[in-house]
Amino acid sequence: MYRNGEVSEDEAAEALEGLRIEVIDGMARIDTGRNVRCGMPEVVLAEGKEPAAFAAIMLAQVKAASRCVATRVSPEHLVALQARLPPDVRMEHRKAARAVILSTGGEPGPRVGTVAILTAGTSDIPVAEEARLIAEEMGCEVRTAYDVGVAGIHRLFSALKDVIPADVFIVAAGREGTLPAIVAGLVDRPVIGVPVSTGYGYMGGGEAALASMLQACSVLAVVNIDAGFTAGAFAAQIARGGGRR
Amino acid sequence: MYRNGEVSEDEAAEALEGLRIEVIDGMARIDTGRNVRCGMPEVVLAEGKEPAAFAAIMLAQVKAASRCVATRVSPEHLVALQARLPPDVRMEHRKAARAVILSTGGEPGPRVGTVAILTAGTSDIPVAEEARLIAEEMGCEVRTAYDVGVAGIHRLFSALKDVIPADVFIVAAGREGTLPAIVAGLVDRPVIGVPVSTGYGYMGGGEAALASMLQACSVLAVVNIDAGFTAGAFAAQIARGGGRR
Amino acid sequence: MYRNGEVSEDEAAEALEGLRIEVIDGMARIDTGRNVRCGMPEVVLAEGKEPAAFAAIMLAQVKAASRCVATRVSPEHLVALQARLPPDVRMEHRKAARAVILSTGGEPGPRVGTVAILTAGTSDIPVAEEARLIAEEMGCEVRTAYDVGVAGIHRLFSALKDVIPADVFIVAAGREGTLPAIVAGLVDRPVIGVPVSTGYGYMGGGEAALASMLQACSVLAVVNIDAGFTAGAFAAQIARGGGRR
Amino acid sequence: MYRNGEVSEDEAAEALEGLRIEVIDGMARIDTGRNVRCGMPEVVLAEGKEPAAFAAIMLAQVKAASRCVATRVSPEHLVALQARLPPDVRMEHRKAARAVILSTGGEPGPRVGTVAILTAGTSDIPVAEEARLIAEEMGCEVRTAYDVGVAGIHRLFSALKDVIPADVFIVAAGREGTLPAIVAGLVDRPVIGVPVSTGYGYMGGGEAALASMLQACSVLAVVNIDAGFTAGAFAAQIARGGGRR
Amino acid sequence: MYRNGEVSEDEAAEALEGLRIEVIDGMARIDTGRNVRCGMPEVVLAEGKEPAAFAAIMLAQVKAASRCVATRVSPEHLVALQARLPPDVRMEHRKAARAVILSTGGEPGPRVGTVAILTAGTSDIPVAEEARLIAEEMGCEVRTAYDVGVAGIHRLFSALKDVIPADVFIVAAGREGTLPAIVAGLVDRPVIGVPVSTGYGYMGGGEAALASMLQACSVLAVVNIDAGFTAGAFAAQIARGGGRR
Amino acid sequence: MYRNGEVSEDEAAEALEGLRIEVIDGMARIDTGRNVRCGMPEVVLAEGKEPAAFAAIMLAQVKAASRCVATRVSPEHLVALQARLPPDVRMEHRKAARAVILSTGGEPGPRVGTVAILTAGTSDIPVAEEARLIAEEMGCEVRTAYDVGVAGIHRLFSALKDVIPADVFIVAAGREGTLPAIVAGLVDRPVIGVPVSTGYGYMGGGEAALASMLQACSVLAVVNIDAGFTAGAFAAQIARGGGRR
Amino acid sequence: MYRNGEVSEDEAAEALEGLRIEVIDGMARIDTGRNVRCGMPEVVLAEGKEPAAFAAIMLAQVKAASRCVATRVSPEHLVALQARLPPDVRMEHRKAARAVILSTGGEPGPRVGTVAILTAGTSDIPVAEEARLIAEEMGCEVRTAYDVGVAGIHRLFSALKDVIPADVFIVAAGREGTLPAIVAGLVDRPVIGVPVSTGYGYMGGGEAALASMLQACSVLAVVNIDAGFTAGAFAAQIARGGGRR
Amino acid sequence: MYRNGEVSEDEAAEALEGLRIEVIDGMARIDTGRNVRCGMPEVVLAEGKEPAAFAAIMLAQVKAASRCVATRVSPEHLVALQARLPPDVRMEHRKAARAVILSTGGEPGPRVGTVAILTAGTSDIPVAEEARLIAEEMGCEVRTAYDVGVAGIHRLFSALKDVIPADVFIVAAGREGTLPAIVAGLVDRPVIGVPVSTGYGYMGGGEAALASMLQACSVLAVVNIDAGFTAGAFAAQIARGGGRR
Repeated sequence: MYRNGEVSEDEAAEALEGLRIEVIDGMARIDTGRNVRCGMPEVVLAEGKEPAAFAAIMLAQVKAASRCVATRVSPEHLVALQARLPPDVRMEHRKAARAVILSTGGEPGPRVGTVAILTAGTSDIPVAEEARLIAEEMGCEVRTAYDVGVAGIHRLFSALKDVIPADVFIVAAGREGTLPAIVAGLVDRPVIGVPVSTGYGYMGGGEAALASMLQACSVLAVVNIDAGFTAGAFAAQIARGGGRR
Repeated sequence: MYRNGEVSEDEAAEALEGLRIEVIDGMARIDTGRNVRCGMPEVVLAEGKEPAAFAAIMLAQVKAASRCVATRVSPEHLVALQARLPPDVRMEHRKAARAVILSTGGEPGPRVGTVAILTAGTSDIPVAEEARLIAEEMGCEVRTAYDVGVAGIHRLFSALKDVIPADVFIVAAGREGTLPAIVAGLVDRPVIGVPVSTGYGYMGGGEAALASMLQACSVLAVVNIDAGFTAGAFAAQIARGGGRR
Repeated sequence: MYRNGEVSEDEAAEALEGLRIEVIDGMARIDTGRNVRCGMPEVVLAEGKEPAAFAAIMLAQVKAASRCVATRVSPEHLVALQARLPPDVRMEHRKAARAVILSTGGEPGPRVGTVAILTAGTSDIPVAEEARLIAEEMGCEVRTAYDVGVAGIHRLFSALKDVIPADVFIVAAGREGTLPAIVAGLVDRPVIGVPVSTGYGYMGGGEAALASMLQACSVLAVVNIDAGFTAGAFAAQIARGGGRR
Repeated sequence: MYRNGEVSEDEAAEALEGLRIEVIDGMARIDTGRNVRCGMPEVVLAEGKEPAAFAAIMLAQVKAASRCVATRVSPEHLVALQARLPPDVRMEHRKAARAVILSTGGEPGPRVGTVAILTAGTSDIPVAEEARLIAEEMGCEVRTAYDVGVAGIHRLFSALKDVIPADVFIVAAGREGTLPAIVAGLVDRPVIGVPVSTGYGYMGGGEAALASMLQACSVLAVVNIDAGFTAGAFAAQIARGGGRR
Repeated sequence: MYRNGEVSEDEAAEALEGLRIEVIDGMARIDTGRNVRCGMPEVVLAEGKEPAAFAAIMLAQVKAASRCVATRVSPEHLVALQARLPPDVRMEHRKAARAVILSTGGEPGPRVGTVAILTAGTSDIPVAEEARLIAEEMGCEVRTAYDVGVAGIHRLFSALKDVIPADVFIVAAGREGTLPAIVAGLVDRPVIGVPVSTGYGYMGGGEAALASMLQACSVLAVVNIDAGFTAGAFAAQIARGGGRR
Repeated sequence: MYRNGEVSEDEAAEALEGLRIEVIDGMARIDTGRNVRCGMPEVVLAEGKEPAAFAAIMLAQVKAASRCVATRVSPEHLVALQARLPPDVRMEHRKAARAVILSTGGEPGPRVGTVAILTAGTSDIPVAEEARLIAEEMGCEVRTAYDVGVAGIHRLFSALKDVIPADVFIVAAGREGTLPAIVAGLVDRPVIGVPVSTGYGYMGGGEAALASMLQACSVLAVVNIDAGFTAGAFAAQIARGGGRR
Repeated sequence: MYRNGEVSEDEAAEALEGLRIEVIDGMARIDTGRNVRCGMPEVVLAEGKEPAAFAAIMLAQVKAASRCVATRVSPEHLVALQARLPPDVRMEHRKAARAVILSTGGEPGPRVGTVAILTAGTSDIPVAEEARLIAEEMGCEVRTAYDVGVAGIHRLFSALKDVIPADVFIVAAGREGTLPAIVAGLVDRPVIGVPVSTGYGYMGGGEAALASMLQACSVLAVVNIDAGFTAGAFAAQIARGGGRR
Repeated sequence: MYRNGEVSEDEAAEALEGLRIEVIDGMARIDTGRNVRCGMPEVVLAEGKEPAAFAAIMLAQVKAASRCVATRVSPEHLVALQARLPPDVRMEHRKAARAVILSTGGEPGPRVGTVAILTAGTSDIPVAEEARLIAEEMGCEVRTAYDVGVAGIHRLFSALKDVIPADVFIVAAGREGTLPAIVAGLVDRPVIGVPVSTGYGYMGGGEAALASMLQACSVLAVVNIDAGFTAGAFAAQIARGGGRR
């Protein structure tokens, strides 16, 4: 509600009243005003939700906001959604991103700003694709370069050429998670590190990558392990440049 | 060297040659080209460096780049620096930020972009001041609201009014580290969380704050515990908006 | 045995003698005096128990105490119980709470005191339902508001209106576990935080939520991750107000 | 602001306006309305605050609320406070609780409800005394039994006799932290466990005690390691029984 | 080889020569002299071994030592063993202990010394049974009392009566792992604590129990989580009293 | 109170009455019956206790039991004790063990059983000396071999010859903590591992030693890091062989 | 590219150009120059890769380099590879090492240098076999001694005789991970410790072994838990002795 | 004793006899045969040793072996050593390495093999200097390049030129510990990573560096945090190439 420069008493009052909240089956409260407030699509984390409940929430969202996205979608979630899909709702399955999109209307508007996404290895691609999907939903152009590696530093130089110029970089890396810091030492735009839960052995669930990104000497901000959604949305907030411009 | 849109073979070659690197006493290698490459001032982490070595590095930096900053400066570092200060170098001690600035010439240029900095408590202020110093050095206007709290949510509403509009928010918080996520749920610009090592008991060294920021449902990026420098530089990269614009 | 104001030498002696303890198959010792001693129903943790042993323990309990509850019940446990159920024992399966109730006689008595239960998300509901079941078994009225969220703080205001007045609040939250601290900053009754093992990545098994609740600046007490039973029983102890009143 | 049964639109509006917030030196925001809202005294955590800033905050608090408390007070804090103390403010140093109380007026009102506080060893006493101070400030009668031990279980029986009847129990214990669970198995009122950072070796900073309290089979709620303040305030909320009664 | 009082140069030489070592398929080296050296049966940890390799090792052991034991035996291990069993080898499956015994000859000799084994809950029984099996194999009498609990301390008094007098106590406990410390405060013989990986949530894999046993104020020694074998063998070493007597 | 074979109803009653408990200054409860109950001297952990309180407790103990021991004694503790020492109490400072002994009467009785104590390095000696003191106080003969090492395995063979025959072995080791497991593979009597907080870097506070002892393939029981007292008392319980013999 | 003594500007330039990098399906970048640069075969970590993608990468590698290896290969990976195998590519499955080798041409050249590989138990063999495969691929002779144990130190002496002389030792061990340190105390060549994720309970996933190897008093270098590939390649780098000789 | 190719029965016997072991004050056992056995100088870890004991050990060592080294030497250690220094022993203090060398005779022999040592920052230099000292004592030539950094990758290229050709590389790095992996991707000789305890915040004591080195995709072996001694000795073992050549 605190969009820059236009905070009004009315908006505040409205928030307190909770006017835009819809209750589903006494189980979920749909906050259909979030898009207006934070400029972000409705994104549902499917993981951990019962398939039927998941489908009900998704359909309520798309009815209210004309478009919504779910991440970490399992086959069970897909089946439950398909079985309840009304004829006027379009469903798109993005397998590489483990995501699904429901929409009743048009596409996202014209692209504003560019997000570059790199991965260190091929196992980091699903997380990168989740970030890409969200950034595109939020209206950004996305360029990707995957499996850039760090063992052979020259692969990085070639990949960077493919994705610049960009307003912001997302760099996903598992194991030792070194790539984001190296990229941040080479470019003059913000770099967001995404630790990925690949690797094995000591701190092999992404913790080593998280630690090395947090300790990096380069300037770097970090999101949770495997948090493609957060990285994509954060990057889009940067790339869009805000209402002030 | 990979400034957007102007990557040249020459710059790459130059990097390999290492032309701009200066060796001090076989002990430190000064990378005097960093400002050009990443648009960032030279910032020296004083902590862990011998006072004499620290002073030598600082003076080499300021000679090469006309301005440089040191963070986490102890009284011993200050004394060593003062004792070696040439007459044409100006030294400024920013106590609240535990920082020192050396310069031979002019001020930072005109302000570009606005960074808002909030803290949850009064103990988070030194970290916030470090972030502020760096963002200002990088040419941004900074607005602050400290001790905003989270126990009484109404204090937050009043503080937000003081700092908006802003291009990006830095929110520093110790203990449970909740404030950044709440701010991120209320504004439509990027929010950077800085965990602070206040608190005591279980995960009281900032780890609880770090964990809760990484797990936040809101869209939030995070830096290392107490990493005011990183937060300030990252925010400035966002607020300046890049050369492309 | 140390019920307030009525500690007798006889009770102590009785405890030493172990009069009320029943041994099943050399495998389990049934403490059928617990209800008298602590005013709590017999609650069996099914998880980790062999189905046959589980059924034997449950039936011994219900025979001695006329009513008993099991939590974290798997389908195998249910089948084993059903197969051994005598005609005079009633069995009720509460799926949302993953619980089962055996009884030979009447219902719990009239309601004394009110427990309010909130959850941050929909994934926290099973834990909340377990807490609800126990609090109701212990004779309290329970009011719930689920999926209250924290990203949009205004959803909380609307939810609080639904559940007050209450004698005590249980607030279940996964991921960053922020909601309990916020509720505790707004109400003047005790708030019990229940960390839930939702979330992923760094400390995603409920540890981040546990840490942020323990570090909270608000006044808050905490139970183990996913410990709906403990939260419900503790809240009921508060809400009932004790025999002294 | 959500006192049971009397939520008004005006209170909510007032909160948004932030009327009761006072800013000190651009450094701290005093929330002088907290006593009204949550029925709790103003308590300042001295640790981590600069002595001069600490004194300024305390004096602003006592001016606004006529009484305020600080915990974890060092000699430096005391000296700074003493040096700035106006003639009409009374200062009381509670050494055993490492606390200081400022007041301009009368004593706390008549006692409502009883809190029993036990400790396992003598090293746990400072934490227990901090809890006692807060509970007394919040208007409760407090009974204590210290160094109750667990190695010789018979010491516990004798200690319990000294403190019952009570509305709620606080049990502080370091090392293995077993005592709270044992007490909770013997009484029918709520028991709050406080892990204490005594002990050495593996998890000797209070983590072993925290873990064993969270895993306890008895019904027990827990606060942070060494969190005497939280335990005392939470117990007082229970013992006072709320405005509804 | 360092049996008390009879260390000879010859034994040492023999060890160096490696005379008693048998190599199976270039894969396992059977140390058939261990029984002589440490007075312990050959015990094979089945877990983590391929079924066929496991069977080959077992059969080599029983051929050399006339009796051997395997713990943590899966159905696949049993099938592999059965299929290769020569007619002159007897195989006994101890289901409760997840163990299997092969023998070609007589029973263990007469009982020397008594080991008492207690468990806190029913889930701790498999670990206790593993300890029992080993202690019996090493020639001790074993008395057990299971599901003794700690919430109701009077159950413990009754159980202790069942198992004393004993030379040494093994106490297995999961969750908060309190029982061993309490037993150690009541008896004058050595008590060995065995943490068990029951429980859930924070440190629920036995770590809380391990920590609380290590921090115990009572005199207590500890073995690894779920290490029934180690506890049983260590207790038997104590109970047998050594060759010196 | 549960001395083997002589449990009486009277003893149990006596325990409940708490007859032998003495309260000092409302601060400590002296359990002067412990020697009778568990055959162990009164041992006070000085660390974490105020010097004056420490002295008061010690003097009460020695008055009641004619002999008592304190471990982890600082110079401040010694000064406080000396200043309050009555003429009829003898005080002995054992510097190597960081311990002090008060006594009013005779020496410990004749030696029963033998405890061998080995250390891996010289830094482990203070912990070993603490163990030695306790074992001697409990009436055992102690033989020691320090700085045995593990890098050169032949040093071990020579050291073992110095200490056998023994009823039980205590082996203290820091860093990787390997020595106890190796000793346990060579002797046929119980071996108690004591992890010591020497070492540096990863798990250098004794955790690596603790972990490797718990995981040892040999039969080994473990006590807390630096817990010389526990190791000594546990070993003495074994070496004395109990009243039954 | 920095082969000793022959660094040329051209090689550096070539690296920047990225001439030898091949992109597969926009998904993987094949660095076919690695063999030349670091003298190491192309090794693909199958785990975490989609079977089809895995097969495509392997076939591109073998086409470019005539020989390549994959580790941690599942049956699904094997099937996918087999289905796409061209007639001119030979596929060899090394089951014990969980590896597969593709080749179009000749064998590895003549053996240079000797690597000795020891394991503590039989469960460590798969990791040892992975190391062996890599060392052999890199042209070394390998000698192995498995299940050497540590409980009976004499088994080690016999095993060492089987494998010496060698240029370098790899010692794989799970549980307490003691064997590498002992070997390092006995030989005068480099010893590489490989922690293995066998064991159970506290730090049973290889962490105890890792910790004890890092803390070892002997001179020892360590690789990640289960990292047979790294150990084998590192050992081969040592054994080959480099181009300079 | 197992020097390659020359294992004799006599050497083994000698080891058992322990002929070369000298006992100092019942406190330390000097293994004066280590140099012969493992080709390594006697190195004493001063940290954690009493100054007087430290001096006694050093003097015994130098008497037996004509040369010995101590690391992590404090001023107190130096003073104690100086005070006891006989006229025929030469003492050399290497301040940068925090080391001291005692010798009665000549210098180390001619240089065999070359060790290259790099550090990421200036704070890593003490650890690197400790490694250098040991490698030189073991007869290797050492080349160093300090403060190589990773933020600007071009500084690395310039530094590598300074130190090659080398037989082995030691790379010390704190914070994110990335440099060793990058070096390992560029050279064809073994690279040893040394994590350094610089950095702050999350895993700032060297754990992040350790984790990232263990997870590195490049081929890399690792030693304990700050373990300059181990890295230097291990590198020298490699560089010397063994007696066999």
